[in-house]
Amino acid sequence: MNNKEQIFLRSALTLEGAVMSSANVMPWFWSRQDAHRFRLEKIPFSELSKWGFDADTGNLCHESGRFFSIEGIRVKTNWGSVPEWDQPIINQPEIGFLGFITKKIDGVLHFLVQAKMEPGNINMIQLAPTLQATRSNFTRVHQGKSPPYLEYFIDRSNSKVLFDSLQSEQGARFLRKRNRNIIIEVEHDIPVYEDYCWMTLGQVLQTMRHDNIVNMDARTVISCISYGGSDGIQVTQGGLGASLLRSLDPLNRSEYSNEAIISWFTEQKFKYDLGIERIPLRIVHGWERTDMCVRHESGKFFSVIACAVEADNREVSSWTQPLVKAHQQGLIAFVAKEFKGILHFLVQAKVEPGNFDVAEMAPTVQCLTGSYEEAAPEDRPPFIDYVLNAKLEQVCFDTLQSEEGGRFYREENRNLFILAGEDFPEEVPENYIWMTAAQLKEFIKYNNFVNVQARCLLSSLSFI
Amino acid sequence: MNNKEQIFLRSALTLEGAVMSSANVMPWFWSRQDAHRFRLEKIPFSELSKWGFDADTGNLCHESGRFFSIEGIRVKTNWGSVPEWDQPIINQPEIGFLGFITKKIDGVLHFLVQAKMEPGNINMIQLAPTLQATRSNFTRVHQGKSPPYLEYFIDRSNSKVLFDSLQSEQGARFLRKRNRNIIIEVEHDIPVYEDYCWMTLGQVLQTMRHDNIVNMDARTVISCISYGGSDGIQVTQGGLGASLLRSLDPLNRSEYSNEAIISWFTEQKFKYDLGIERIPLRIVHGWERTDMCVRHESGKFFSVIACAVEADNREVSSWTQPLVKAHQQGLIAFVAKEFKGILHFLVQAKVEPGNFDVAEMAPTVQCLTGSYEEAAPEDRPPFIDYVLNAKLEQVCFDTLQSEEGGRFYREENRNLFILAGEDFPEEVPENYIWMTAAQLKEFIKYNNFVNVQARCLLSSLSFI
Repeated sequence: MNNKEQIFLRSALTLEGAVMSSANVMPWFWSRQDAHRFRLEKIPFSELSKWGFDADTGNLCHESGRFFSIEGIRVKTNWGSVPEWDQPIINQPEIGFLGFITKKIDGVLHFLVQAKMEPGNINMIQLAPTLQATRSNFTRVHQGKSPPYLEYFIDRSNSKVLFDSLQSEQGARFLRKRNRNIIIEVEHDIPVYEDYCWMTLGQVLQTMRHDNIVNMDARTVISCISYGGSDGIQVTQGGLGASLLRSLDPLNRSEYSNEAIISWFTEQKFKYDLGIERIPLRIVHGWERTDMCVRHESGKFFSVIACAVEADNREVSSWTQPLVKAHQQGLIAFVAKEFKGILHFLVQAKVEPGNFDVAEMAPTVQCLTGSYEEAAPEDRPPFIDYVLNAKLEQVCFDTLQSEEGGRFYREENRNLFILAGEDFPEEVPENYIWMTAAQLKEFIKYNNFVNVQARCLLSSLSFI
Repeated sequence: MNNKEQIFLRSALTLEGAVMSSANVMPWFWSRQDAHRFRLEKIPFSELSKWGFDADTGNLCHESGRFFSIEGIRVKTNWGSVPEWDQPIINQPEIGFLGFITKKIDGVLHFLVQAKMEPGNINMIQLAPTLQATRSNFTRVHQGKSPPYLEYFIDRSNSKVLFDSLQSEQGARFLRKRNRNIIIEVEHDIPVYEDYCWMTLGQVLQTMRHDNIVNMDARTVISCISYGGSDGIQVTQGGLGASLLRSLDPLNRSEYSNEAIISWFTEQKFKYDLGIERIPLRIVHGWERTDMCVRHESGKFFSVIACAVEADNREVSSWTQPLVKAHQQGLIAFVAKEFKGILHFLVQAKVEPGNFDVAEMAPTVQCLTGSYEEAAPEDRPPFIDYVLNAKLEQVCFDTLQSEEGGRFYREENRNLFILAGEDFPEEVPENYIWMTAAQLKEFIKYNNFVNVQARCLLSSLSFI
């Protein structure tokens, strides 16, 4: 274990002796809700300001051509049971920053956490990284203020980069979107503005056990942290924490080598075609546009809506924007099992239309509730029944976590972590493979491998 | 060093005691030229059979919609000095196989090398991997024979996969093309057909010192081989071989950690935009179509031509197809330098329109001769003068190597490997970084990082 990993692990194991006592974390969070005034109202598309449907393509765009747009894609694939469909998709070609500033305080690394309002958030405010900024944001296309702390990420000459990589977002909703996930460490004192506070990693992880408190952006950044093994740090707790730490140690034996996993993944990408044609939103087949939304004829999947927002603590105090509203809750579950004493995660190679590279490594189960509730028995996603019928003692983690509130309207997914029992099948379908946590972390490092659902679920597992 | 790496290294160091004596390699190669009859003729587009310009888009396509097509792209980027241009590009969405079968013979790993004809090849025949097959090839869209040895790559239950990953091809010519680079090892005897023979890796590397003998496909597959360090194998030779082996050992100290390199690369991808819009070939601005070619108004860059081919040893004995003809020779050079006794390569983050992911890691210099011969002094590519003025004692490798003869008409690039002298600048531009050979190999493993020019040049460096 290198020094950096040890520092992260120590922070992850620290609840007491933090700048803010752990008992005060949730009260501070709720105080931020009370301190601000927010208002969100669904509006007809005609009341959008600076946003509109392009006369030619029907795409929903900002007048500057920046931020994001809602366009159409035509998908052809030999993966899954539907060979061809059209759908709206969010196109946001700019890479934004998702970044934490960290600092050692009394020997323990603290993260500068932001209580951030996003229009689509459940709870309106959620805990976020220090900085969340698209390029349109920080080049100030909206002519508002520059986001706080941006300067620390632009000029990194007085800080140390702990990691810095591009990571994907939801392939079912975004067209090849990625963000720059970065953690920097400063040594000098920096101002702590209103709505920001220092927390240890352990405190952030603890908070993820509550529903919808830590936002997607914070979870994906945290997922990029490698912990190495546990040598040099005493973990007194038994159970999942110790088991997870053994799985995070790259020196421990895995069922498959990284090269064998790359070969397996190569076979998946070789086998499955994904043809994506960008088409005007106007001609997206099976979807209709009303005054209030763009929706699928069946009422399923998601719709695009418009809303007006007022907030007293954002760079701009009121604005209108489109949001994507899911019609079904999602289910995201990892099944894990020990092989020769080392916990392995059952990873799925999953094709989604907006993926950067055909398939990404996904959790054991990742689906919409509709896809199994209404499906014929033979069409139910693999392992869904195992997950839904798990005994309480097998369930290590079960919370609702939110998707990005800047784009999605109150979207939450059930996140589950299930320990497989003796009855779990030995054989898995050919697009599944067992991997240790250390291996998942290694693939996260080289980006474009592990999808956002798998990363976020992995990041929410606490050691204590 | 693991066992697999040791086996590859032993093969790379073996010239004597191989199945075919090294003295017979080149005679065998020339005997294959003599054994076959090939004919290539440039024809007008109107004489193409089964290929034609689409009435609507003007794209040049096969009637089956398979193989590849010549389409247009509109490029917008803030990288380099030209912010916007149109160009034709080869679109070949199918992933093909580039694969070697290997087998231990008398304790040394041998590669089953093919003397393969491709219409655009200089020398018509070049040494190639055992199998080179697009999906259209092996699903037999052309209704010819199935390629020899395909079955070993489809059903791998009787062989061991030594590696298997997707690797990119030229980003200036192909739209996000990748191939599956794979080496398998068999234990049982297999037939050796006409035009195939067993060679050690050392013999293949030796052959790369000649111009245009080993094709691009063989070189890219070989570039994926990791050698580890040299422990357990005695390398008696001093000089570049020993120095290269130290650089290939991942345990030796590098100037930058892999994570620091990922961070540097993230910054490059963050900074540079690459907007690619697929457009019909018909409207590609600045290019014109005549009876005989599609070419740039300036006569520069490349043109698309048509040719008729006759061959007696291919799956189909005569056919017509388009080829891309370069108008300028390219220059590909790595500058390397020792840091604390370990050889480092000066790697460039280079944006090319067909790149899968904006930028790839490229050699120190990668350009067309025209781009420096005609350029104003301030527009000459970095390090071009250092490379062109290198003293003979600094030049470790200087040959002409071919691009893929199935798509390119007699295209060759000068490949150079230069040892930096004391006079080499300490400071390099911000899109350059020093990496060891072991680090380049690690990034090749996780694909989409190292471009085909860097990989092929790296693969041609022999230890002996």
